[in-house]
Amino acid sequence: MQKNGYRVQFTSSRIRDLMFRTTFDPKIMDGDIILNLSLIDKKDLDDVLGIFKMVISSGLSVTPYVKIVSEGESIGDLTIEKGKVGIGTVCSITIDGVLLKAGIPVNPKLGGVVQIRNGVPVRFTDVLTYVSTTVDPLEILMSQGITSVSEMLRTGSGKILANLREAPMVARDEIESCLSDLLDAGFSGILEVGEPNTRVLDVPIERDHLGIVVIGGTNPMAVVQEYGIDIDTSAMSRLISFKEMSRIEDLV
Amino acid sequence: MQKNGYRVQFTSSRIRDLMFRTTFDPKIMDGDIILNLSLIDKKDLDDVLGIFKMVISSGLSVTPYVKIVSEGESIGDLTIEKGKVGIGTVCSITIDGVLLKAGIPVNPKLGGVVQIRNGVPVRFTDVLTYVSTTVDPLEILMSQGITSVSEMLRTGSGKILANLREAPMVARDEIESCLSDLLDAGFSGILEVGEPNTRVLDVPIERDHLGIVVIGGTNPMAVVQEYGIDIDTSAMSRLISFKEMSRIEDLV
Repeated sequence: MQKNGYRVQFTSSRIRDLMFRTTFDPKIMDGDIILNLSLIDKKDLDDVLGIFKMVISSGLSVTPYVKIVSEGESIGDLTIEKGKVGIGTVCSITIDGVLLKAGIPVNPKLGGVVQIRNGVPVRFTDVLTYVSTTVDPLEILMSQGITSVSEMLRTGSGKILANLREAPMVARDEIESCLSDLLDAGFSGILEVGEPNTRVLDVPIERDHLGIVVIGGTNPMAVVQEYGIDIDTSAMSRLISFKEMSRIEDLV
Repeated sequence: MQKNGYRVQFTSSRIRDLMFRTTFDPKIMDGDIILNLSLIDKKDLDDVLGIFKMVISSGLSVTPYVKIVSEGESIGDLTIEKGKVGIGTVCSITIDGVLLKAGIPVNPKLGGVVQIRNGVPVRFTDVLTYVSTTVDPLEILMSQGITSVSEMLRTGSGKILANLREAPMVARDEIESCLSDLLDAGFSGILEVGEPNTRVLDVPIERDHLGIVVIGGTNPMAVVQEYGIDIDTSAMSRLISFKEMSRIEDLV
């Protein structure tokens, strides 16, 4: 969605802004992360939390942490209106922010839908590059009726939201060290790290680069939508302190 | 939407395919045009036709022509299932096909949302470039709740679907001649032809090129959606003979 009052802003530009402002340090599990925030009807909260728990415990999220904002409470400049609840997940672009702060020139490239067959990611079937859209790719794709995250949870095969970034292969050791720290901090949503100069899930990668595919933080929201529950999602909504997030098991 | 069984196909590639297959000749008003096709519930047909008539008579469409496909009838390889009706409009990429066949190297660039203030187009507020998305930009944008075509019809101000192509300024005379023939054939949806080397509705244009903005053929569908009526739209669905289209006034 267009956030500034004038001139189109492509998602890639907004992402660079958010990456710069990411201060999360996986080693101390502190600092600011990027949040996907959805608004739901208060009456649906129990159902939505149940769905989130199911999706997150199946590994289809960036981290097991969520943020609940009750009616009347504020998050940044947003106050949750009466009858509504805000529910947020960690956005996968947080990982790009962490890689950047480790000195790795990472380039978030595209968001898309990845086909999973019997638990194994096969290929991207639909993609949108960040450099060319003013509306967030995953926000768009989750409203097109082309995901089947709930089917994936039930049968092991389906279509989930994911995104791809490229980084130079010379940085491989630093990337692996960073991703390992992130994994220790609960960032389990890394779907695939490609070999240098090799297509990743059927998407070509720039010469001397490798591709990293991360599960979209909005997959739990996509399942809520697939279940026909009203949900209004802003991907990459804002930054909040990681300390404000709770593990889903502590809520449901 | 992904149409082929393997490998992602960007919208720009699909557009070139459709432009090549466009045979419409505005001078004799014959040949094949590109169709946007929506499926609606049969019970909603009268309401939908009323909305289409209102939108089209306000000029918010490429042409005043529509195509109705009744339940059980086929269009190409698609047979309309029981309880449904197909309703189609001319897709604005038909204009690119006509320009191409006149020898003009036209480059369909992006689809987006144009803000109109008191009847005057002001700027693109959201855009997606064709070269970078596998899902049609206007299909996407009409489902994001950011259009306000019905408000535009009521008040003269609102946000409508439109798209932009670039062509070299050396072809200016041929472009004007082509657009004039198209206007005579009822293609009244040309919103703006920019000056060479000048931004068009706030979008930068390549050096020595001019930009042409055309109203999206899916605006009538966007209004149906804004009214809360179920509609499932495939932009740039297929080609059909222009002779199969009817003026909306002859139907309602």
